Amino acid sequence: MSDQDKLAKLTKLAALIRYYILAATTEAGSGHPTSSLSATELMTGLLFGGFFRYDVDHPEHPNNDRLIFSKGHASPLFYALWAAAGKLSEEELIKTYRKFGSPLEGHPTVSFPYTEAATGSLGQGLSIGLGMALNAKYLDKLPYLTYVLLGDSEMAEGSPWEAIQLAAHYRLDNLIGILDVNRLGQRGETMYGHDLKAYRQRLNAFGWETLLIDGHSFEGILPAYQQAAGGRGKPVMIVARTIKGKGVSFLEDKNGWHGKALTREELARALPELGPIDKSVRGKIPRPHDQRPLEPQPQNAKPVSYPLDKPVATRTAFGNALARIYPEFPRIVSLDAEVSNSTMAEIFQAAYPERFFEVYIAEQNMVGIGLGLARRGKIPFLSTFAAFFSRAFDQIRMSQYSDPNLKFVGSHAGVSIGEDGPSQMGLEDLAMFRALWGSVVLYPGDAVSTEKLVEAAARHQGLVYLRTTRMKTPILYGPEDEFGIGGSKVLHRSDKDVATVIGAGVTLHEALAAWEALQKEGIFIRVIDLYSIKPLDLATLQAAARETKALITVEDHYPEGGLGEAVLSALASTPTPVQTLAVRRKPKSGKPEELLDYEGISARAIISKVKGLL
Amino acid sequence: MSDQDKLAKLTKLAALIRYYILAATTEAGSGHPTSSLSATELMTGLLFGGFFRYDVDHPEHPNNDRLIFSKGHASPLFYALWAAAGKLSEEELIKTYRKFGSPLEGHPTVSFPYTEAATGSLGQGLSIGLGMALNAKYLDKLPYLTYVLLGDSEMAEGSPWEAIQLAAHYRLDNLIGILDVNRLGQRGETMYGHDLKAYRQRLNAFGWETLLIDGHSFEGILPAYQQAAGGRGKPVMIVARTIKGKGVSFLEDKNGWHGKALTREELARALPELGPIDKSVRGKIPRPHDQRPLEPQPQNAKPVSYPLDKPVATRTAFGNALARIYPEFPRIVSLDAEVSNSTMAEIFQAAYPERFFEVYIAEQNMVGIGLGLARRGKIPFLSTFAAFFSRAFDQIRMSQYSDPNLKFVGSHAGVSIGEDGPSQMGLEDLAMFRALWGSVVLYPGDAVSTEKLVEAAARHQGLVYLRTTRMKTPILYGPEDEFGIGGSKVLHRSDKDVATVIGAGVTLHEALAAWEALQKEGIFIRVIDLYSIKPLDLATLQAAARETKALITVEDHYPEGGLGEAVLSALASTPTPVQTLAVRRKPKSGKPEELLDYEGISARAIISKVKGLL
Repeated sequence: MSDQDKLAKLTKLAALIRYYILAATTEAGSGHPTSSLSATELMTGLLFGGFFRYDVDHPEHPNNDRLIFSKGHASPLFYALWAAAGKLSEEELIKTYRKFGSPLEGHPTVSFPYTEAATGSLGQGLSIGLGMALNAKYLDKLPYLTYVLLGDSEMAEGSPWEAIQLAAHYRLDNLIGILDVNRLGQRGETMYGHDLKAYRQRLNAFGWETLLIDGHSFEGILPAYQQAAGGRGKPVMIVARTIKGKGVSFLEDKNGWHGKALTREELARALPELGPIDKSVRGKIPRPHDQRPLEPQPQNAKPVSYPLDKPVATRTAFGNALARIYPEFPRIVSLDAEVSNSTMAEIFQAAYPERFFEVYIAEQNMVGIGLGLARRGKIPFLSTFAAFFSRAFDQIRMSQYSDPNLKFVGSHAGVSIGEDGPSQMGLEDLAMFRALWGSVVLYPGDAVSTEKLVEAAARHQGLVYLRTTRMKTPILYGPEDEFGIGGSKVLHRSDKDVATVIGAGVTLHEALAAWEALQKEGIFIRVIDLYSIKPLDLATLQAAARETKALITVEDHYPEGGLGEAVLSALASTPTPVQTLAVRRKPKSGKPEELLDYEGISARAIISKVKGLL
Repeated sequence: MSDQDKLAKLTKLAALIRYYILAATTEAGSGHPTSSLSATELMTGLLFGGFFRYDVDHPEHPNNDRLIFSKGHASPLFYALWAAAGKLSEEELIKTYRKFGSPLEGHPTVSFPYTEAATGSLGQGLSIGLGMALNAKYLDKLPYLTYVLLGDSEMAEGSPWEAIQLAAHYRLDNLIGILDVNRLGQRGETMYGHDLKAYRQRLNAFGWETLLIDGHSFEGILPAYQQAAGGRGKPVMIVARTIKGKGVSFLEDKNGWHGKALTREELARALPELGPIDKSVRGKIPRPHDQRPLEPQPQNAKPVSYPLDKPVATRTAFGNALARIYPEFPRIVSLDAEVSNSTMAEIFQAAYPERFFEVYIAEQNMVGIGLGLARRGKIPFLSTFAAFFSRAFDQIRMSQYSDPNLKFVGSHAGVSIGEDGPSQMGLEDLAMFRALWGSVVLYPGDAVSTEKLVEAAARHQGLVYLRTTRMKTPILYGPEDEFGIGGSKVLHRSDKDVATVIGAGVTLHEALAAWEALQKEGIFIRVIDLYSIKPLDLATLQAAARETKALITVEDHYPEGGLGEAVLSALASTPTPVQTLAVRRKPKSGKPEELLDYEGISARAIISKVKGLL
């Protein structure tokens, strides 16, 4: 095809895509047409200009280029592109967009097979793309490129700058951002308006190449993609001047049109402005080379083994476990936010340095990268202090809608960390991770159960949170004991049990100490290790509720959303009273044992609670 | 004092401060001496070089300069400064640092009167400082300066870059950052090591002045502070090359010494290296000019008034309320993250533009700024979509330890937002805000109760979350109805009630519709508006548990940590069964009513649940 024919065809495709955008949003009665129109040429040029390589019949092809709409609200454009590629009918696009049950949701989710990851909370796409580019360069060693479309408004978020920093650090010249500078945010102008140089100077300072172009001219767009794919040791951002609402005179560059669909009357006025629409035109996307990553054969992991007489911190057991099971799960990758010598991910790093990535202190970026890796088939284990996962709650929350195979490991949970004080104490982490759709929450009490649960987490397809403890704790289990998602262990049980004490992690040891003291006085309690907090072992809890007079939960966490409320929820229809011991006083610095006692979650507090029941 | 005498005194003070740092951490057996030693000259020069103005007997003085340790782990240095200023005895510092009950916690909290805000989760201090600088320049109109000490590691976080962007945007030349570039993070070198120019080019690109200095030479440090206070229209960052562990040969620039106290033997080896310690030397801090902000006299707010027949979205009522009550609470400030036309903060902005600050899409920064304003006596209302507060969970979590007078208003809660899909739905926000120590969580069901609860939030000293709804809902209450923190309303009640349905916000209307339908069939239910989810109205819930066979909670939120578990917790010792209706299926796009039904939280679902009990 001659250059002129090519430009003519791209122009036709852009007109068709604009028609789809306007028609679909008007039919839906909502959506973001103007934010889609600004990026129409940018995306048409990318997908149909010969740059993007993708097997449209096999979205799972490992060497497909990747495209992430970080500005997820431009979903009309995203779906319109795939309609223009012939993979979605006009009927389906226009009639089902934003409708209940359609894969074409208001913001892209993985219900639609061409969505790489769900977006819609701004500032997250570049980190996800970074994960995919990291995968290409360092893990799968494939030549695919990762493209991320960003809006100018989302550059106010800190999270893209975390990704920008790290992408330069890892020299990801296979990562290409396209910044759609349409000047207008939701409620007015952005901080920098149409000042492209403001973005250029920031991006250059952070080590990126930048290409400044007119985002509506294919003559500017096509050479930019050509140049961006050059692979010169740096990530590249194409910074494009665009017009919000481009193509429709009464929308162009006008405030007040964000997130608004046209009425039918407005649509009728707008469509003629697009010029003739050729509904038969279809864009071609060339297929990628059929390269696939080398995948090592899984080998059986060595068995777990800890001497029974030597306490081990569960965070150390996590590090040991990850290194131990890697041969069996060679898709494991470990990411850590500059605390690997605290989370003990460093044990894995020492054993498999090429499978470990330091992300520095940038938890949001870590989660985005992890999601990108997970979507490319890896099993990422992300570790930091339990408290600091709160930094990435939005990214964690968003990952729910991408069917995430992500494993979060939070160390330094609870007041039992001691002297460092409340800023370092994970006290809301159970609430945060329990609240996620389909999540698994694990909190082992010793090294053996930690090892087995890390293995269970690796095997489970989905989002898993594992909480570890700073201090060393005694070994409770032998190598033959089994631990699984949804399980529990009854550590003490008799026909004389007056109450059941349910602990996990560090409080399990307090419960065991309480049992020890109480049985010397002839008082017997049942002790349950509820290491799987979500899902939990309903049958065992129900039996305890039937067979003992009261349940007492003990947790090193605030009362809301943690172990206690998990048990209450499970037993909501059971009349047995449940008493919850949890962190109820404002935490402070001190020795672990002082703090456990101060908060009423120590053996002493349990004993007093049990005696109060007699 | 001659310049030479001044330098000699500062050198003496620095030696004393180093002694305090080493002795206190060794006595505590933990802490971060090396991260403190790197910034010793920087902070000694600031506090005792004549730049910092502070009434040391009145930390609350409104014209005091402000100093925030964003690198909170340098707390030994922070406390040592105040000891060197004569406000803390050597005995108290060395004997109580990190001990249970001491105000000298492992990371600074407001238990210590000179702490401006608790820190210890990195990357947050600059936003807090920004809030204080914003207050000085735009609200209190006072000449005080705000200083923030940052570590180089924390520059990997996105959050400082949010603050850096916005500080330049608001031309805060009264904000001065001091970047302690000691090269080493917790587990090794930072991304840029000792490359000061890497920081300079990034900061300059973002619109800051930078001054590059040797952070251990008072000859460089003092002129830098002189220059930084110049007020030339831009915020200033002093970028200082420092040595981690400076002053002790076996610690200097060595990896592996992060967060480690010296043993007594190591301390004995280290102390002689500091040279002679003059324990009698004290630093002088000049007092500020006695300027105080003009404070308008509070005037009574106008009464609430809504026509009973016209539905109003509670988000609109929030905007109305804020504008209505401002005369009574003239310390109110409104911040919004670029969605004021959705949260309806724009109503307040239109009425009081000088009390509104656009923070653009940067929720973490918004919370930090809010905290800075709150610590300077304002009542900040921060608004964005309920879902997007998850972006700032770490900042919100950290604010707990600063006695925060912060009001969070999250709009677009739950699946009832409809077509935009799950990325925009607040479904974990109740869990997140409930889990905070001492928090208040409110979720009004109509415009009148929203207005009254916004007023209650403004009056309450503490952290309040108010959840609002996107769609319009009918007016349920009259202007005479009272609503308070910890209250509830029983909307329907009879002696024949078979069950109690507890809703809030949008589900309250579903409960009312269920009542309507059921009573036509002769089935009566009690309906409770649980608008105060934390704390909650225990007496009313207990009465319902006694007087009806079962309780049914209905919430537009995931089951974990929300309204249902709040009720379960409150009634943990009550045998009455509680059934919880909540968002249990993966949410998607669709019409609000379709989604409420799909999730089993509609009137139909309630009716079916009630009939199942019969």
